[in-house]
Amino acid sequence: MCHPRVIQTVKQRLLSRRDLFRTAGVVATATSTTALAAGTALARAPSRIEDLTYTLSPAFPTYSGEPGFAAEQTFDVAEHGFNQFDLSINEHTGTHIDAPLHVFADGAAVDEIPVASLVAPLVVIDIRTKAIADHEAQVTPDDIKAWIAVNGALPAGCCVAMDSGWSLRVDGPGYRNVDGGGTMRFPGFHAEAALMLIEEAECVGLAVDTLSLDIGSSTDFATHTAWLPSGRWGIENIARLDQVPAAGATLVVGAPKHRGGTGGPTRVLALV
Amino acid sequence: MCHPRVIQTVKQRLLSRRDLFRTAGVVATATSTTALAAGTALARAPSRIEDLTYTLSPAFPTYSGEPGFAAEQTFDVAEHGFNQFDLSINEHTGTHIDAPLHVFADGAAVDEIPVASLVAPLVVIDIRTKAIADHEAQVTPDDIKAWIAVNGALPAGCCVAMDSGWSLRVDGPGYRNVDGGGTMRFPGFHAEAALMLIEEAECVGLAVDTLSLDIGSSTDFATHTAWLPSGRWGIENIARLDQVPAAGATLVVGAPKHRGGTGGPTRVLALV
Repeated sequence: MCHPRVIQTVKQRLLSRRDLFRTAGVVATATSTTALAAGTALARAPSRIEDLTYTLSPAFPTYSGEPGFAAEQTFDVAEHGFNQFDLSINEHTGTHIDAPLHVFADGAAVDEIPVASLVAPLVVIDIRTKAIADHEAQVTPDDIKAWIAVNGALPAGCCVAMDSGWSLRVDGPGYRNVDGGGTMRFPGFHAEAALMLIEEAECVGLAVDTLSLDIGSSTDFATHTAWLPSGRWGIENIARLDQVPAAGATLVVGAPKHRGGTGGPTRVLALV
Repeated sequence: MCHPRVIQTVKQRLLSRRDLFRTAGVVATATSTTALAAGTALARAPSRIEDLTYTLSPAFPTYSGEPGFAAEQTFDVAEHGFNQFDLSINEHTGTHIDAPLHVFADGAAVDEIPVASLVAPLVVIDIRTKAIADHEAQVTPDDIKAWIAVNGALPAGCCVAMDSGWSLRVDGPGYRNVDGGGTMRFPGFHAEAALMLIEEAECVGLAVDTLSLDIGSSTDFATHTAWLPSGRWGIENIARLDQVPAAGATLVVGAPKHRGGTGGPTRVLALV
């Protein structure tokens, strides 16, 4: 959880910069035709695909603890000649995207996310070691600087993903990891890291292998409220980050496109 | 609509070949890591993205004529600090995928579709001219041969898409195009074309810019029942095919991944 001073600083910086983002077109209007950033995503031919998406079912762990998905069969091939289900989905369930509208009344809805941002160079920040000792380990500006020291500058239009090793816990209660006091404990992005990525790099998205961009015990959701209102998206419950390199892969984000939505289950593929 | 003899021939051919498909791995087990076919998809760097997905809303036209989508707001940022919706979705609504399970009890569910098939060279067959004169124009084997004559062999692992010009009708009743007798009239794939693609080419998917792989008046769904049980997928209501070339683009299919599903709304992007 962030110190209140940090949060206040984050909010002040954002308020002073929000108009700039809009002017600069970072909060862009969605368009159906978009040029890819030259020299970044897919500059060389990929050789394989990695599926970074969990299978969605009523049992998939959710932030609230209540099931976020249900399917009811409405047609059966033996009786009707075809199979079909009606689905009930909480938008923020499974491997899913957060649109700016999730936390910001004036933010882009999921159908308004610029298409260009859905194909993004993938940056993976590995905090698995510190997350073993500290279940609320956070990606900090120092972690990002360490990645840059090894891999070079963050590529334009990138998505920065946290690999905390939490995927190993997805099939059990250790994923929500509720402590004796009823508080969830899992890793996330520090708001200062989000702010650094907004101020110093042309990043379009954050991704986490946990249930929230913020650590489990967060009550102020400082990272959500720093990141999403700047016009950027987040992915929660991303899978299999241990199967992709720290640098060089391209993320393709199969975000849903329902009008006015705040997010939704998303097919996330990496071209490596 | 197909002549009964054609349907019978299609079914006989499929029954005799189904074991072969399984043996040959066309009906492959879903795997999360997959090599891309060399020299086909994304062999050169794409320069732009085209979004081939319609925005989903309760008003989007459906096969049944009943709304296929609803969203109920469950949290409001002014009151709760965040916005969120619960979604109700008929799987076969909007720009969506049909999994083999849709018409075949033993077919792959949407979460079992091989990931490799979700990144596919895109072949666009333009039947716009004949669909002006005949609202139930079909993609035939001759249309596919004409594409091959101009563009060369169908690329391995391709998706063959029908551009009938129907996207121009999507905002009005002309999309379902119900005649005086209550029968829908729109273009689709002829079952013989589907069979040709199964027997003679390594295609993984069909896509149509209409509500169904079969023409609107179909009662036997000959194309669905020829194509899907072979382990291949279909996309219905694909958008904006007039913005992509007849050959050379790569389709990325953001299919949903709910366990046991028969299909679902899908983000479809083309890398051009």
